[in-house]
Amino acid sequence: MIQTYNPDFEQDIREKLERQEFMKLLGFKVTKIAVGSIAGELTLEQRHRQHKGFAHGGVIATLADIVAGFAAVSLVPKHYHVVTAEIKVSYFHPGVGDKLLAKGCVIKQGRKFNFCEAEIYVVKGEQEPLLIAKASATMATTTPEEIPRKV
Amino acid sequence: MIQTYNPDFEQDIREKLERQEFMKLLGFKVTKIAVGSIAGELTLEQRHRQHKGFAHGGVIATLADIVAGFAAVSLVPKHYHVVTAEIKVSYFHPGVGDKLLAKGCVIKQGRKFNFCEAEIYVVKGEQEPLLIAKASATMATTTPEEIPRKV
Amino acid sequence: MIQTYNPDFEQDIREKLERQEFMKLLGFKVTKIAVGSIAGELTLEQRHRQHKGFAHGGVIATLADIVAGFAAVSLVPKHYHVVTAEIKVSYFHPGVGDKLLAKGCVIKQGRKFNFCEAEIYVVKGEQEPLLIAKASATMATTTPEEIPRKV
Amino acid sequence: MIQTYNPDFEQDIREKLERQEFMKLLGFKVTKIAVGSIAGELTLEQRHRQHKGFAHGGVIATLADIVAGFAAVSLVPKHYHVVTAEIKVSYFHPGVGDKLLAKGCVIKQGRKFNFCEAEIYVVKGEQEPLLIAKASATMATTTPEEIPRKV
Repeated sequence: MIQTYNPDFEQDIREKLERQEFMKLLGFKVTKIAVGSIAGELTLEQRHRQHKGFAHGGVIATLADIVAGFAAVSLVPKHYHVVTAEIKVSYFHPGVGDKLLAKGCVIKQGRKFNFCEAEIYVVKGEQEPLLIAKASATMATTTPEEIPRKV
Repeated sequence: MIQTYNPDFEQDIREKLERQEFMKLLGFKVTKIAVGSIAGELTLEQRHRQHKGFAHGGVIATLADIVAGFAAVSLVPKHYHVVTAEIKVSYFHPGVGDKLLAKGCVIKQGRKFNFCEAEIYVVKGEQEPLLIAKASATMATTTPEEIPRKV
Repeated sequence: MIQTYNPDFEQDIREKLERQEFMKLLGFKVTKIAVGSIAGELTLEQRHRQHKGFAHGGVIATLADIVAGFAAVSLVPKHYHVVTAEIKVSYFHPGVGDKLLAKGCVIKQGRKFNFCEAEIYVVKGEQEPLLIAKASATMATTTPEEIPRKV
Repeated sequence: MIQTYNPDFEQDIREKLERQEFMKLLGFKVTKIAVGSIAGELTLEQRHRQHKGFAHGGVIATLADIVAGFAAVSLVPKHYHVVTAEIKVSYFHPGVGDKLLAKGCVIKQGRKFNFCEAEIYVVKGEQEPLLIAKASATMATTTPEEIPRKV
């Protein structure tokens, strides 16, 4: 039973996304914010490529981290924060196409951390989305008092 | 006994790096290319940040993927390629400072895949570099015939 | 489209299971063998415990490795072998109950390796099975020629 | 600066090890208990084998979990507990030989979790120990109040 402890989670996530400079640099847009579940998409361009012309593994890892992390953010109490303790990304296919879709969800909610997963798909023309990567992550919850300060 | 099967590995890696569009978007510079070992650095700027002002986890994962991957590239025969099968990144500290340093190496060389590790440090002012993340990855080798074509 | 390249996979897996000494030491029984999917169960006894009385993490990791690995074995050509390149296990709940159930499947089939997942549940009395751990693994295929010899 | 918050850590770990039924079933012996660092060994016998005659991946994962976990136990305050949040094990070589050696250490100490690593070596006759597996784990600390009860 996944549940949220923040009735304003959607608005609070939108405000946090506004300050995600690196996400903006990539051009990733969040398209769905639900309890324990986040999705978004990115139009593939030349700047996302590695040397063979595929979407860079780092782009895919970034999308996985964002959707898995914000899936956890949607559950924690207001003013609490979420930090990635660890994330593992497995790559199934090269990212070649027009667009990446990313979906993240919490598969085990906990007080101290949430176990999350993310799936990354590539879309090419009219074809069905193809699952190109899957990630599992441990997202730690920090209380307002514990947040490391930016110096 | 880590050894290279490509006498031109340094030149070949430099050429591949030239085509790493996403690496250039981040501003990461490779500073050392050796047999089974790669290092580089990135000056932290606003565009690398997540919403709390720290270096984005995706930036760190990207650097880890690049240095671990090219450490493997330095070993494989000419015209062979390396693809990330999976990478796990553990985050120890928030990335706050002037610069990130990334070091990658092959810890077990193999014919079909190389097991690699990466360490990411943050440097702030005159302080000692602080280890903020560590990654382990399975880097698969593909022969020239196996390379998935870009469509 | 997951498919098998060994029409005798079920019989061949049963023969391999007969020689799994460590699996027998644990008392794990495989109950289902299908294309890309394996399941089994283990009656929890005192010998499976760690110091707090829960099922040992190593028991759970072993079950995950077996069901994920044999899910891959079900797909590869006759006389080919499968070795675990790496496995990550996330633990959601302590293993307390009467029985563990383990399910493994291949989520991405490939020529050189199969990406697999495993789920471990605990059953207690008449209650619904509870998911206590989830694993993701890279299972490498070795041809008959490549098999490392036992010395 | 790794430090312990339990002056009696060595004695407390020895008492916990006494109750590790699964560890005894395997025959693993802890040979060194230090601040943030544990080592032990296991004489390989037929019961540890998988179907090809190598040490079972589950044996290696169990040893990695024990030495990484107790490395964390050595640091936390008296009566606190440590649970494995997740562990990833990469397998470099088949386990063939007379004995397995396992070494675990904490590489980043934290209040809520410790990041740990483990290395597993095989020893055969008079040869140098060979590194056959490496693991990274997130070990979570639970306060005496948080410990899940055994039912």
